[in-house]
Amino acid sequence: MNSQGVPEPSADLLSLATAVRRAAVVLGQSSNQQRQQALMAMAASLEAHADRIVAANAEDLAQASADGLAPALVARLKLDAGKLAGAIDGVRQLSSLQDPLGARQLHRELADGLVLERVTVPLGVLGVIFEARPDAVIQIAALAIRSGNGAILKGGSEAKCTNQAVMQSLKEGLAGTSVSVDALDLLTTRAESLALLRLDGLVDLIIPRGSNELVRFIQDNTRIPVLGHADGVCHLYVDQEVDCTQALRIAIDSKTQYPAACNAIETLLVHEKIAPIFLKEAVPAFQEAGVCLRGDEASRDLGVEQVATSDDWSQEYLDLVLAVRVVKDFDEALEHIRMYGSRHTEAIATVNHDTAERFLRAVDSAGVYHNCSTRFADGFRYGFGAEVGISTQTLPPRGPVGLEGLVTYRYRLRGEGHVAADFSEGREQFSHRDLPTGTE
Amino acid sequence: MNSQGVPEPSADLLSLATAVRRAAVVLGQSSNQQRQQALMAMAASLEAHADRIVAANAEDLAQASADGLAPALVARLKLDAGKLAGAIDGVRQLSSLQDPLGARQLHRELADGLVLERVTVPLGVLGVIFEARPDAVIQIAALAIRSGNGAILKGGSEAKCTNQAVMQSLKEGLAGTSVSVDALDLLTTRAESLALLRLDGLVDLIIPRGSNELVRFIQDNTRIPVLGHADGVCHLYVDQEVDCTQALRIAIDSKTQYPAACNAIETLLVHEKIAPIFLKEAVPAFQEAGVCLRGDEASRDLGVEQVATSDDWSQEYLDLVLAVRVVKDFDEALEHIRMYGSRHTEAIATVNHDTAERFLRAVDSAGVYHNCSTRFADGFRYGFGAEVGISTQTLPPRGPVGLEGLVTYRYRLRGEGHVAADFSEGREQFSHRDLPTGTE
Repeated sequence: MNSQGVPEPSADLLSLATAVRRAAVVLGQSSNQQRQQALMAMAASLEAHADRIVAANAEDLAQASADGLAPALVARLKLDAGKLAGAIDGVRQLSSLQDPLGARQLHRELADGLVLERVTVPLGVLGVIFEARPDAVIQIAALAIRSGNGAILKGGSEAKCTNQAVMQSLKEGLAGTSVSVDALDLLTTRAESLALLRLDGLVDLIIPRGSNELVRFIQDNTRIPVLGHADGVCHLYVDQEVDCTQALRIAIDSKTQYPAACNAIETLLVHEKIAPIFLKEAVPAFQEAGVCLRGDEASRDLGVEQVATSDDWSQEYLDLVLAVRVVKDFDEALEHIRMYGSRHTEAIATVNHDTAERFLRAVDSAGVYHNCSTRFADGFRYGFGAEVGISTQTLPPRGPVGLEGLVTYRYRLRGEGHVAADFSEGREQFSHRDLPTGTE
Repeated sequence: MNSQGVPEPSADLLSLATAVRRAAVVLGQSSNQQRQQALMAMAASLEAHADRIVAANAEDLAQASADGLAPALVARLKLDAGKLAGAIDGVRQLSSLQDPLGARQLHRELADGLVLERVTVPLGVLGVIFEARPDAVIQIAALAIRSGNGAILKGGSEAKCTNQAVMQSLKEGLAGTSVSVDALDLLTTRAESLALLRLDGLVDLIIPRGSNELVRFIQDNTRIPVLGHADGVCHLYVDQEVDCTQALRIAIDSKTQYPAACNAIETLLVHEKIAPIFLKEAVPAFQEAGVCLRGDEASRDLGVEQVATSDDWSQEYLDLVLAVRVVKDFDEALEHIRMYGSRHTEAIATVNHDTAERFLRAVDSAGVYHNCSTRFADGFRYGFGAEVGISTQTLPPRGPVGLEGLVTYRYRLRGEGHVAADFSEGREQFSHRDLPTGTE
């Protein structure tokens, strides 16, 4: 437990959160069309105020440079006209996706005249705490409104001016629509974002985007459900029966396409029977791609330069570093993944269909892949239109979290005066007859 | 935080939990038929050892009486031949329910040759902490095995002998099957059940059945997801346009059919326009049913005897006590439910279809009912065959939790060497074409 503790919410914060909640109660009952119109209005407003947003971002960038922020973080902070246009486009695309609300998952006659259904509904209010990526404000706000949820956002302090300019534009966009401007709001201080953790009853889900320490701290200091995102210690296992060229291409892409991403592989497992052939090609290929390889003794005998200790197996490098281990067989690969994996995304490269299916059945991660790059673990690539992040928890939502991950469900039972006593005393009987859900 | 703290798991407990986990990894990949056979074997073994179980229960009952346990709790502890037979029957019925695993929820071509699916899979290992209801061991064990999950159970100490006899029989049943006897186990001490809370990584979900204090303590002392079950402060709202006779019958059933249940109503809300007519019938009817009514001033003017304070609105009586409030209108009823409800089950009695639908849309509880008793909020009644409990959390699972609530999902992506760089660099395009799921 943090000895600083988590502060009690201020009167202002309670007032803000209550306003968001009230707005969310109405928003949650809005129609698909109303929410689509709200998104289009948000996009239009962002477009109309692009100059203002880019100017605010320039202020943040200047401040970041003056504060000596690392170049990679400055790059992540930048929201220029092009990036903003892309984010606005994303909002419009989200608007055209299928409504995640009102989907009937279950439809059953319990008895004559007594009918049960289960339909999807919004969660309520999302509390999103994320580090400096100002386009995230736009994506999250759009995902929230599209799925009928209110949202309270706290971005990184480096992006303060940008986030405020974006939020102002979003609210101005909502002002002409049936969705209340109070459905979205921004927190600006660390104290407020900590106090957010105390708002159980007003906030339904906390979505942390940031370091493992941040996520862990949040999990330990709130009763509100927290979307679980742990490390992305992802694996590629190269099986003995494999197309080496294809496997190598997948390995290179999985590590280098965007190494700082959580879905990049951190460990390469190679079956001992194919290791000599595979690593003969792979070692120079990785070198050429600028990747530093660290391996066990067997892989070092086959050309891997640096030493990997057991610490390396748990390491999420988020960089051009890859741990390599030669495994005895398929089962040893599974055992390694079970011990060191973070349940994010694991892939197998093999031409043996049965082996692939065994892997897909046996590995307990949010995503399990055959003959493709782990970099596909992404909401856009899955066709979700957008994502709030990738969840590695066991319970849903799991994997890339898009619109579908921001809704829950509710049971509705419609009767004609039915009472339980009639059934328990034998005067009536349950039929439990499934009815069409309408989604067939 | 409990100043006693939560003890570190002993070597024995770690060993037990690891064994359950290993067994669960295999069980999770078993076929529907294998799991069905396991359940039938469990049922047969319970039947074969019924005398032993009933005898063990007699020991527990004798001890409970000697310890001066309250009669209601002794009644709950009893597992005689008839009750056992009913529980065994439940196991067989569960076996015949549809397999909750392997259901394909999503099937999409991301690009030519790159196909994504999302299928249901077990959670892994359930940690179930419950108070003395020995038939619960049977139900939970059966639900776990049927859904491919391992389970570690800790029952009430009053049922110690019974639980041990049941678990022994269950393991003996599994011994002849493809499901490992280690997939189920029993904890017997309080220290062990506390230490269970520290087994994140080995246990995937904690299911507490018991007092709110127990649930709250567990939520505050573990990182493992906890199935949320809070109070059952359920409401029935009697609208101005209503069939009074029908509404009264629903009200009586909702309160008295089994008052200690979490789905019994605790507060009756009555529209002021119908209150004189409705309460004129309702007050004597409740009196005759032995229910003590506590009301606000307006309801007391109409015959309710005792005073309700604002504390009563939040009270879960679990007894033949009902709070009554006369409300100005539909919106005031909604406001009351929003403020005092526990998101369990709320019902409206009305003949106005539009009003009913507004209620069903607006109320944020796990179950929202029209013209039927809240007592239907139950896994058996929903046709689930069994339930582990009723969840009041916002995220799924929500409401009565049966087989479907004990599974999660996983994404599987099958490609032919696809890499992300080909898409981000424009050489390939996503098609995002939905394919049949096979559940149509």
